[in-house]
Amino acid sequence: MKYLQDLDWRYAAKRMNGQAVPVAKLENIKEAIRLAPSSLGLQPYSIIVVEDAALREALSPAIFHQPQVKEGSALIIFAAWKDITEEQVDAYLANIAATRNIPVEGLGDFRKMILGAVSGKTPEQIFQWNARQAYIALGYATAAAAFEQVDSTPMEGFSPEAVNRILSLEEKGLSAVAVLALGFRDAEKDNMARAPKVRRPSKALFTHYENELATA
Amino acid sequence: MKYLQDLDWRYAAKRMNGQAVPVAKLENIKEAIRLAPSSLGLQPYSIIVVEDAALREALSPAIFHQPQVKEGSALIIFAAWKDITEEQVDAYLANIAATRNIPVEGLGDFRKMILGAVSGKTPEQIFQWNARQAYIALGYATAAAAFEQVDSTPMEGFSPEAVNRILSLEEKGLSAVAVLALGFRDAEKDNMARAPKVRRPSKALFTHYENELATA
Repeated sequence: MKYLQDLDWRYAAKRMNGQAVPVAKLENIKEAIRLAPSSLGLQPYSIIVVEDAALREALSPAIFHQPQVKEGSALIIFAAWKDITEEQVDAYLANIAATRNIPVEGLGDFRKMILGAVSGKTPEQIFQWNARQAYIALGYATAAAAFEQVDSTPMEGFSPEAVNRILSLEEKGLSAVAVLALGFRDAEKDNMARAPKVRRPSKALFTHYENELATA
Repeated sequence: MKYLQDLDWRYAAKRMNGQAVPVAKLENIKEAIRLAPSSLGLQPYSIIVVEDAALREALSPAIFHQPQVKEGSALIIFAAWKDITEEQVDAYLANIAATRNIPVEGLGDFRKMILGAVSGKTPEQIFQWNARQAYIALGYATAAAAFEQVDSTPMEGFSPEAVNRILSLEEKGLSAVAVLALGFRDAEKDNMARAPKVRRPSKALFTHYENELATA
């Protein structure tokens, strides 16, 4: 399958060549992010796109000077909601009602269900829940980049505090959980561009439980 | 782009029709999961595949009787490592050395870096870190299923304790973080099969920061 070849082609480029990601490719990657599934459909995150070179330069120390920040042409910052507020839930329900042309009043049970799920969690649990959803979207972004033959490097090596401060995220109820650099690999400078991909073999990663139980 | 059409086609099917997912499609979905990126490349999870109908029946109460458990033909359970042990790190380094045909001794700095990252975290932080990586793989699974025109329903509505107990996951240092049902939608029984997809519009989900800063 072509998509598996693309996923095998991708790797976390360590060095990029400065070439800009074409607008159409970036828009497709963003659309994949937008289509990513999330718990209850809430999409409990905001996605920050930074192409501006000066702002990427300003962010560089907060991302520990990883070269892809400047050598790529766009940073995508996945910022999870720190909370899930009634206002956010109501905006979501209004979007459902508008998209499906149904009265928002009919979504009362769903509203109760969402707010019930939220009220049973501590603020930290809500944030972790939201962060996990953002990682699904991060996965979609890396896959879409591969289909576009764009390189992408997911990064957790950054200071959330510093990134939040520079982008004023805390004030918006957000905190950065992952950064994705987009660009094109510099195959000469990046040894990893030639290194065979390392993944656990299927036999180690997967367990087919019926067999295991049968032979236990 | 065809892949965006596929991602738009997918939704979390509420009812499935009992038709079995062909072996070749399931293998492709598994391969996408195997290729998913993860922090430091550790793949800190195990993936449990349950096709056996009796075992899915036994798991059904633990997954709150959601109909896709029995109406689909396979469950994929994403079980995050509860910890990251030296043995797991060394197995990973051995895999790198074997895959790239390099001496494992050359990976000493990388070993120190991984163990340093682990030792700076509490057990709960390590588990949450691992769970996030599993969600990237969950995202890959839902996308690959869409490319195979297989329906997939990600589920967080289950009892991790009960699933762990039935599959003996705790003893293996694992805890279930997400379940994905695979099968084929029952478009007659599932109202959602005809409902327009709800996603936040681009303008609400994305912020292009250079513009915002420039106009602030």
